[in-house]
Amino acid sequence: MKIPPVKGTRDFYPPDMAVRNWIIDGWKKVSVRNGFEEYDGPIFEYLKMFQIKSGDEIVEQLFSLQDRGGRDLALRPEITPTLARMVNQRINSLPKPIKWFSVPRLFRAERPQKGRLREFFQWNIDIIGVDGVLADAEVIFTTVDYLREVGLTQRDIRVKLSSRKLLASALQNIGVPEGQLDSLYALLDKYSKMPGDTFEKTLVERVPDSGIATKIMDFMNATRLSEVPEIVGTNAEIEDAIKELALLEVLLTQMGVWRYCDFYPSIVRGLAYYTGVVFEVDELMGELRAICGGGRYDKLLCDFGGPDVPATGMGMGDCVLEILLKERGLLDKNLSKPQLDYFVACVDEKFFQKAIEITMKLRSADRAANFSYKPVGLSKQLKQASAQNAKKCIIVGEEFKNNRLVVKDMSIGEQELVGYDEFWSRLKA
Amino acid sequence: MKIPPVKGTRDFYPPDMAVRNWIIDGWKKVSVRNGFEEYDGPIFEYLKMFQIKSGDEIVEQLFSLQDRGGRDLALRPEITPTLARMVNQRINSLPKPIKWFSVPRLFRAERPQKGRLREFFQWNIDIIGVDGVLADAEVIFTTVDYLREVGLTQRDIRVKLSSRKLLASALQNIGVPEGQLDSLYALLDKYSKMPGDTFEKTLVERVPDSGIATKIMDFMNATRLSEVPEIVGTNAEIEDAIKELALLEVLLTQMGVWRYCDFYPSIVRGLAYYTGVVFEVDELMGELRAICGGGRYDKLLCDFGGPDVPATGMGMGDCVLEILLKERGLLDKNLSKPQLDYFVACVDEKFFQKAIEITMKLRSADRAANFSYKPVGLSKQLKQASAQNAKKCIIVGEEFKNNRLVVKDMSIGEQELVGYDEFWSRLKA
Repeated sequence: MKIPPVKGTRDFYPPDMAVRNWIIDGWKKVSVRNGFEEYDGPIFEYLKMFQIKSGDEIVEQLFSLQDRGGRDLALRPEITPTLARMVNQRINSLPKPIKWFSVPRLFRAERPQKGRLREFFQWNIDIIGVDGVLADAEVIFTTVDYLREVGLTQRDIRVKLSSRKLLASALQNIGVPEGQLDSLYALLDKYSKMPGDTFEKTLVERVPDSGIATKIMDFMNATRLSEVPEIVGTNAEIEDAIKELALLEVLLTQMGVWRYCDFYPSIVRGLAYYTGVVFEVDELMGELRAICGGGRYDKLLCDFGGPDVPATGMGMGDCVLEILLKERGLLDKNLSKPQLDYFVACVDEKFFQKAIEITMKLRSADRAANFSYKPVGLSKQLKQASAQNAKKCIIVGEEFKNNRLVVKDMSIGEQELVGYDEFWSRLKA
Repeated sequence: MKIPPVKGTRDFYPPDMAVRNWIIDGWKKVSVRNGFEEYDGPIFEYLKMFQIKSGDEIVEQLFSLQDRGGRDLALRPEITPTLARMVNQRINSLPKPIKWFSVPRLFRAERPQKGRLREFFQWNIDIIGVDGVLADAEVIFTTVDYLREVGLTQRDIRVKLSSRKLLASALQNIGVPEGQLDSLYALLDKYSKMPGDTFEKTLVERVPDSGIATKIMDFMNATRLSEVPEIVGTNAEIEDAIKELALLEVLLTQMGVWRYCDFYPSIVRGLAYYTGVVFEVDELMGELRAICGGGRYDKLLCDFGGPDVPATGMGMGDCVLEILLKERGLLDKNLSKPQLDYFVACVDEKFFQKAIEITMKLRSADRAANFSYKPVGLSKQLKQASAQNAKKCIIVGEEFKNNRLVVKDMSIGEQELVGYDEFWSRLKA
């Protein structure tokens, strides 16, 4: 009986797993050096957890299930609600500020397409308990620190910055009622994903007042921060948001990553919970896909029944990133073929058990080692050694009667005779 | 709104995550040095995948869900069916023998208790394409290689060995019909988990013929392999199974791990798919829990629509292992507190931006570094450095005007003045 895998999921054969491990290990390394500590939560939570503050799009795409008592659960489509739950549970005992990262496996029941799968990994970094833009800047620095580490350059990527506070106060200043903001964000978020005239048509349908609709279009089309007050007017909140973005530029310059960044007033980020700086990183060539995004969400802990604590963070999925790294040749450049330290061969069946014994001793001495399951001819064993990319091959033969091993360097093809005890003492050194 | 986590799942706060990572990294390291390559599959598969050859107990404990088209899926309770599916899909192109390992996250909807959770991790190693007991011996060696590596000794653990082939032929030789074998395995598997008289009572209910039931009891109570023929008689199959187990002893002796092992005719392993050598590792002190188990399953690929290819493997969960390691003090012994390489402090607000700049430069030079979000007093910053377990603290102060940094060694408390350029060139060296 042959059963296929579920659509939108991936089988990770060893070469695919090597890519996944390389991406995830890179995320972890950069997180740790930027001072973040790793956490994780369960794969599923109560369904209602994800209905509190996630975007409508995410809630529609939940994989739901039930526990044995019939309670509704869902596979996590993002980890931020779990983060809020975990932090709230121990808000008084956790040392602050909280700088945490995670690499959760996430699930969305959407139509699978290139770069969007039903099951994927997402790097998340979050700083909780710091309310200045310095923390936002640090999240952006850490993001660029990773992208730079894997070989992406200013020619490949651009960090597009804006502010949800700026957008909210601009929209209110031109006459959009506060109650309509959340649903408008979801539409505005599609600005860069829709052809210009389709977007404008949809906007006009949603916002019947043509004066307001025109001002929204002008705001979305703005390419510099300085244009904003001319379009939407100004007030204390707008000035405040613009001042924050100006400070963000100073900090990112100091951190050495401003050259990757630019202001884009049209950056919205779909999720309802953002409250301050928002950003996304887009690729500059190819399909201009978003690689990651993030921002400040100062009300989230509160929405999950906790205290009023500021927070800012970023999420980066593995699917688009992997496609981009592959297209740029960065996977081939960075990933090396797995190697064995030793392959242990024997010239003859009577040395077979000795070859097995040496292999096991090497492994317990922390060397990757293999042997042939059958004492076939030596040349066949050497072929196995090459196929398994062994650095060295130990050949157990007649020399072993005088307590000596043949050690062959597989890269240069040279071999030497080494005393058995000397071999092990060299290995320890 | 405060929502609790789902019962039987775990929140991994940073200290818990450090334990999980240490266990999983150990599994990965030992797998790689034993010549295994890593793979993984999706978290969910079509429900029917798990109904083919898994034990009844596992099928009852599935978390099931549906995709958008209404097809029945289930969260994986084990990875072996996925392994069979993946190998069958590429049976002709994969180089043989296949030596693969995985550390899947698995799910079982059972009643949570100590050491048994609804969500857990399991180390799996498998060798596919080798039919001799040498491969079984290698799986057992790799298992012991890990347990030894983390500090467990002969006084802590015992590898209990038997053979499904021996059990099957013994049961048939004393008169149990072949059709009743599978359901009997599930009962016999509970031998060590039930009080002796409860087990005997249940067995007598299941096997009405008292002569057969007595012989089964005698077989289960046997403590040595040599007793078996006296109890159940003999035939070619029984002799063959005993010969295999004798060779297994020779190989494990050669590999240096026989001192951890013993034959236990009563070892059954619940899963229906085993066909040859079976084993489990039990702890010797404490609650005598099983730490892991495995064996040969030569028909599995075939059952999943593939060719007739021999296979053998092992699975070890993280829950019982973690409890055992904690009880033996091996977590405290092996896990070190996370450290920062540098904490960058400033004596004064005017050096704050320089401290930020140096921190970011250190991070991009692959050093774990942190700074204070606010330019508070130096002694407060040094307290933060200690709380974050920093090895060194850089103090940016008046000396910086002469291009020099104060570098303080936090373990011995000594500090030195280092030229700014010299600091970075030392770092690179």
